[in-house]
Amino acid sequence: VKPLESINFNAQHSPMGAFLSFTCGHFGTRGGIGVEIGSPAKQDLYIGIKDGDRHSRTPLKCLPFYRGASSDTSSTFLVEQAGPTEQNVRPNVTPFTADQIQRTYGWATDHWTTDELDFAIYSPFASIPDPAAASPDDLREALAPVVCAELVIDNTAGTGTKTAVFAIGFDAPGVRKLDAIEGFSWRDRIGFAAKLVEDSELIPVQRWDVSEAIADPNPVHQLGTCAGFAFEIPAGERRTLRIAIGCYLDGIVTTRLQGRYLYTRYFSSLHEVLSFAMDDDRFMEHRSVARSLDRQLLSSNLSPDQQFLLAHATRSYYGSTQLLEVGGELFWIVNEGEYCMMNTLDLSIDHAFWELDQNPWVVRNVLDRFIRHYSYVDDRGISFAHDMGAHNNLSPQGHSSYELPRLTGCFSYMTQEQLCNWILLAACYVAKTGDVDWLRQNQHVVEACAASMRARANPRTGIMAHDSARCEGGSEITTYDSLDTSLGQARANTYLAVKCWATWIGLEMLAELAGEPMDREDSLAEKIACSLIACVGADGVLPAVLEADSPGHRSRIIPAVEALIYPAYWLAAIENEPKVRERLSDALRHPLVQSLRRHTIALLGDREHRNFFDDGGMKLSSTSNNSWMSKIALCEYVIREILNLSEFNDALKRADTAHVRWQIEGSGYWACSDQFVSGVAKGSRYYPRLVTAALWLTESPKPVIETTVFSHAARPAPAK
Amino acid sequence: VKPLESINFNAQHSPMGAFLSFTCGHFGTRGGIGVEIGSPAKQDLYIGIKDGDRHSRTPLKCLPFYRGASSDTSSTFLVEQAGPTEQNVRPNVTPFTADQIQRTYGWATDHWTTDELDFAIYSPFASIPDPAAASPDDLREALAPVVCAELVIDNTAGTGTKTAVFAIGFDAPGVRKLDAIEGFSWRDRIGFAAKLVEDSELIPVQRWDVSEAIADPNPVHQLGTCAGFAFEIPAGERRTLRIAIGCYLDGIVTTRLQGRYLYTRYFSSLHEVLSFAMDDDRFMEHRSVARSLDRQLLSSNLSPDQQFLLAHATRSYYGSTQLLEVGGELFWIVNEGEYCMMNTLDLSIDHAFWELDQNPWVVRNVLDRFIRHYSYVDDRGISFAHDMGAHNNLSPQGHSSYELPRLTGCFSYMTQEQLCNWILLAACYVAKTGDVDWLRQNQHVVEACAASMRARANPRTGIMAHDSARCEGGSEITTYDSLDTSLGQARANTYLAVKCWATWIGLEMLAELAGEPMDREDSLAEKIACSLIACVGADGVLPAVLEADSPGHRSRIIPAVEALIYPAYWLAAIENEPKVRERLSDALRHPLVQSLRRHTIALLGDREHRNFFDDGGMKLSSTSNNSWMSKIALCEYVIREILNLSEFNDALKRADTAHVRWQIEGSGYWACSDQFVSGVAKGSRYYPRLVTAALWLTESPKPVIETTVFSHAARPAPAK
Repeated sequence: VKPLESINFNAQHSPMGAFLSFTCGHFGTRGGIGVEIGSPAKQDLYIGIKDGDRHSRTPLKCLPFYRGASSDTSSTFLVEQAGPTEQNVRPNVTPFTADQIQRTYGWATDHWTTDELDFAIYSPFASIPDPAAASPDDLREALAPVVCAELVIDNTAGTGTKTAVFAIGFDAPGVRKLDAIEGFSWRDRIGFAAKLVEDSELIPVQRWDVSEAIADPNPVHQLGTCAGFAFEIPAGERRTLRIAIGCYLDGIVTTRLQGRYLYTRYFSSLHEVLSFAMDDDRFMEHRSVARSLDRQLLSSNLSPDQQFLLAHATRSYYGSTQLLEVGGELFWIVNEGEYCMMNTLDLSIDHAFWELDQNPWVVRNVLDRFIRHYSYVDDRGISFAHDMGAHNNLSPQGHSSYELPRLTGCFSYMTQEQLCNWILLAACYVAKTGDVDWLRQNQHVVEACAASMRARANPRTGIMAHDSARCEGGSEITTYDSLDTSLGQARANTYLAVKCWATWIGLEMLAELAGEPMDREDSLAEKIACSLIACVGADGVLPAVLEADSPGHRSRIIPAVEALIYPAYWLAAIENEPKVRERLSDALRHPLVQSLRRHTIALLGDREHRNFFDDGGMKLSSTSNNSWMSKIALCEYVIREILNLSEFNDALKRADTAHVRWQIEGSGYWACSDQFVSGVAKGSRYYPRLVTAALWLTESPKPVIETTVFSHAARPAPAK
Repeated sequence: VKPLESINFNAQHSPMGAFLSFTCGHFGTRGGIGVEIGSPAKQDLYIGIKDGDRHSRTPLKCLPFYRGASSDTSSTFLVEQAGPTEQNVRPNVTPFTADQIQRTYGWATDHWTTDELDFAIYSPFASIPDPAAASPDDLREALAPVVCAELVIDNTAGTGTKTAVFAIGFDAPGVRKLDAIEGFSWRDRIGFAAKLVEDSELIPVQRWDVSEAIADPNPVHQLGTCAGFAFEIPAGERRTLRIAIGCYLDGIVTTRLQGRYLYTRYFSSLHEVLSFAMDDDRFMEHRSVARSLDRQLLSSNLSPDQQFLLAHATRSYYGSTQLLEVGGELFWIVNEGEYCMMNTLDLSIDHAFWELDQNPWVVRNVLDRFIRHYSYVDDRGISFAHDMGAHNNLSPQGHSSYELPRLTGCFSYMTQEQLCNWILLAACYVAKTGDVDWLRQNQHVVEACAASMRARANPRTGIMAHDSARCEGGSEITTYDSLDTSLGQARANTYLAVKCWATWIGLEMLAELAGEPMDREDSLAEKIACSLIACVGADGVLPAVLEADSPGHRSRIIPAVEALIYPAYWLAAIENEPKVRERLSDALRHPLVQSLRRHTIALLGDREHRNFFDDGGMKLSSTSNNSWMSKIALCEYVIREILNLSEFNDALKRADTAHVRWQIEGSGYWACSDQFVSGVAKGSRYYPRLVTAALWLTESPKPVIETTVFSHAARPAPAK
């Protein structure tokens, strides 16, 4: 592993489908157990050690996961206006400094080491078996809303007793010691349990002040807001504290469509969740899966920077996942990071590569939910809402939480883009799983989608030309809403035109697979391709916006190539359909693809470096300092593996080194972020979408476009 | 009504038993809808008006119930680190200034008037009928978790259209517009509905910025955190907006003993609660009950200062109440203000006067719950825990959340005091209700209490002499835990000794009422009385602590007389028991009472004014600047009505003027508070206990002690 330049950044440690993160890693700020929030929680974490027995008054030395632990944040440790005065404590704690700490950040293990303590958090993941087919036991294993950690103190070489602690200082009162297990909960929603592997005394502590709690003759006061476990380590000995950190939200948690967490089918209480995780065999299995994932990533062909980005991405992805049951039926939701929009469709399509590899049934679930609740018909035909709601409030039928009429920028409708996204998602699902039954059931929807695609296009060029009537005079936008006009406007947009081209190829493929092949002239793929080729400038570059008077006309955008991923992905996924394979191969051999390849060479090889930042990071649009990591990862993959532009490997490698710095330095508090303005996370923080980086694990060993095939390396094993 | 010196203070507007407060009134800070928290919530309230129609860009002029509305708080309106950047808005709003506003603070109406708008919040209260006997309809009326408000704009003399708004800026995302009613909710927990009395357009608004929301062509964006209703008022017209503000917490809300709100039996959702309250007839009935309560208080014999204190007290009392059902049985809880301890027994006894007048069955419920869950037996016999838990976490059986061993001050055990409190509460309950059945059912508990009282006393003096073994070497304290040593220490404490004397009289009364009269020599009342009389100093003052070497020995404490309330209260309550009445009259004629009267005269007439603050407020202990409003109210009552010391009426009147200032200026943010250090609320804020002031409504028209009788004036009518 390449040592991290800085270890000072938050990571989300999350189980699957519980919308839960145990977040820590950024120095001097709060984190801890957050449920159903798009940001780090606000708990001080005290993971530390002191010389002497529990009553000694030497300062506790802790990992720097609490307010005041770094000099730039000490001013945030203010006396609060709210709450009993006893809460305004300043515990006798000093932080380990950065140079005293090593951190190893694996795919599923986040490991902190100092001379005196060793703390690891395990967040293994695996396929979530399809609940329609899986056994309750397997689902219980997969969905337990809990992560595990270990605190190891090796005092074998020591000369005196030491005392260690794991404790959480909650930001609101309501902590209590659990009855039948060594654990604490905040109300009955979140909590943790602990156990010493060695048969020695574990001391529950609960006061306002962690240092006081350990040293005081009354370690537990029910009014205290800081709770945890202390233990002594005699000289010559070693102690291992196992910790399970979990949540349990009972009852209805969403509005309008009333959902419960699916895990409530398999667990009856927080107590049961924590007990389950603290079982010795299960704890060791949990840790062993995490370590095996760490090894898989290490042995992949990814560079250390890529490995970091992927490990960071999968963590924030799982922290955003929420598996519900609504009226007896499953409902898979990925929340949109800090915005908490639910199943934003332009994210769903980006998550699909990972999800189809891990849990294809969740993609089917999202497709079905969009049809049933969040499709709508405007003046041109069917499309899909941008999202399904926000912050656990499902939107009214057929409406997103995001879109508004009468706008031309951010918050306008994405009717064309979401129509493409649903079709592409369906195509990826069917190609990857071969679930033709699902396709036949929904062929009428697919056909309505094709008709709607056609109705939105300029019949001559095939390119999207009509804004939805839902815009009420405004203009549609694309997923790149907040980037710049070069990518924001939907009409006459090159990025979206290539996406429409890929969508038509997908529609052709779906028709073929459904056994009702499309007449070639019904597809607009060829028209779009020819129109785009005709727009290539003298410099070999496709303008971002095809309208010459648009400010976006001069923008040079890398995402023009984004949609090439789809035909390539389908071709790699489909085995026994020669006609389909032939059509996909044709598409990838089309002159449009060659034009896009030349476009990319012009942009990446540009002597003015207009598509790179000074630090080497990738600039998606030459005219914007706003760049999105998830799309960078996707485009990098297209450049390397589909366009096979190995001559830029070094440039992309340098870019990834910058991207790691963006995440660590530009998004230290916000864990994995997507939207960076000149390297600083300015939005789309705490975000799932960078999981597109998982594409990097999928290598294309063959040369150039016409023979593109996918192979699959180093991916996590499915759940046992 | 005496005009308020300052109108700048928070009030809790609360239904009964829902642990809900709609808090507003303090300038420039947040408030709004708070559920299950011991402090104001953190919502900005926008109740205002602007010139022009909804699209006009003139600033909105609002009541000053939002951050930034007063100059000293504008710095708190910071850009927040958390959340989407769109939330960091600075709406186009200016506050009405204090001189532009009139406020009338009635018993159940809080009325704000400016030249342009008129806003009133109604929080009527009444008896909660005993659920064991009452009809579901009556309980539905009594327990609806909702308060109502009205915003009236009179533009009849205006020359142009105006636009008004009621909106709440939530501190966390998750607001949504309700479907079948004009309303908004935050998740499905809290929310409000609105309706214009006139048949004209109501405009739902939801954006990040309230002023933007009103003016924008898209008034509702689901991502917005500020939501409410706007309406236009054409020149020459008048509009009345009715608002219902409520909550609905479904499912289990407490831990260990798993409780649900009783209102969930009568309502199925927040939507149903709000619809119920918005019914025209019910709204008008609600308002009419509030106005009738206002009139009752106005027509009482209380001074305007006393009226203010009582109106302030009942509001914070109801905001702390929580009526649950645990496993099919009722569970009444009063939460301890900002501390949220549940049914703190030394508060329960102070609330008893109000509760026995309003809902005697809740007192029985608390007595039963203490027996069943929170009684314990130490080395000396039975006693009761200080409280039943905190912040919705019920404590383990027989333990409070507050008490700890090995201490001599705050957080030590209150074994003796709580034993007295339970007995006194039982005696008040039986005396007031005549529920001898309950007494017979629990006579074994009462007898165990008597035995325990005896075992804790010095057999010679009758005064408490033995600290509970639960103290493990520490010392017991009294309810005045944080005042000073003069009242804090339990052993040899004059306040507690008088309370023990009253307790023995209560035990004698209970024995008599149960039909098993106590042998006179079994009671320690006489011993205690004689011992105390012997301790009176040359100056006629009883030392606070009877041990001559204690620092409390020199303290002069008004609460020495507190416990005189009990025999007087029982005597007034009991009608047909001549033997009991005779015993109580004897007690009140006892030389001890004459001594206490002289003690009081010495303290109140003291030329050094050691028991008054400079502002005239009452100082419970001459040696402490910490004084408690609830106990002041109780002692004032004893002084005026039981000791009949009318010569101090003016001094007490002056004191009450100071006490009003303490609440308004010293506790402006915290609504009604109890603990004031030199006039500033320093603890026990947002507190229910001042409801002891309701005793003031109970006049004793007869002279002096030996003929003390209670009559009841101006109290709220029972629920229909």
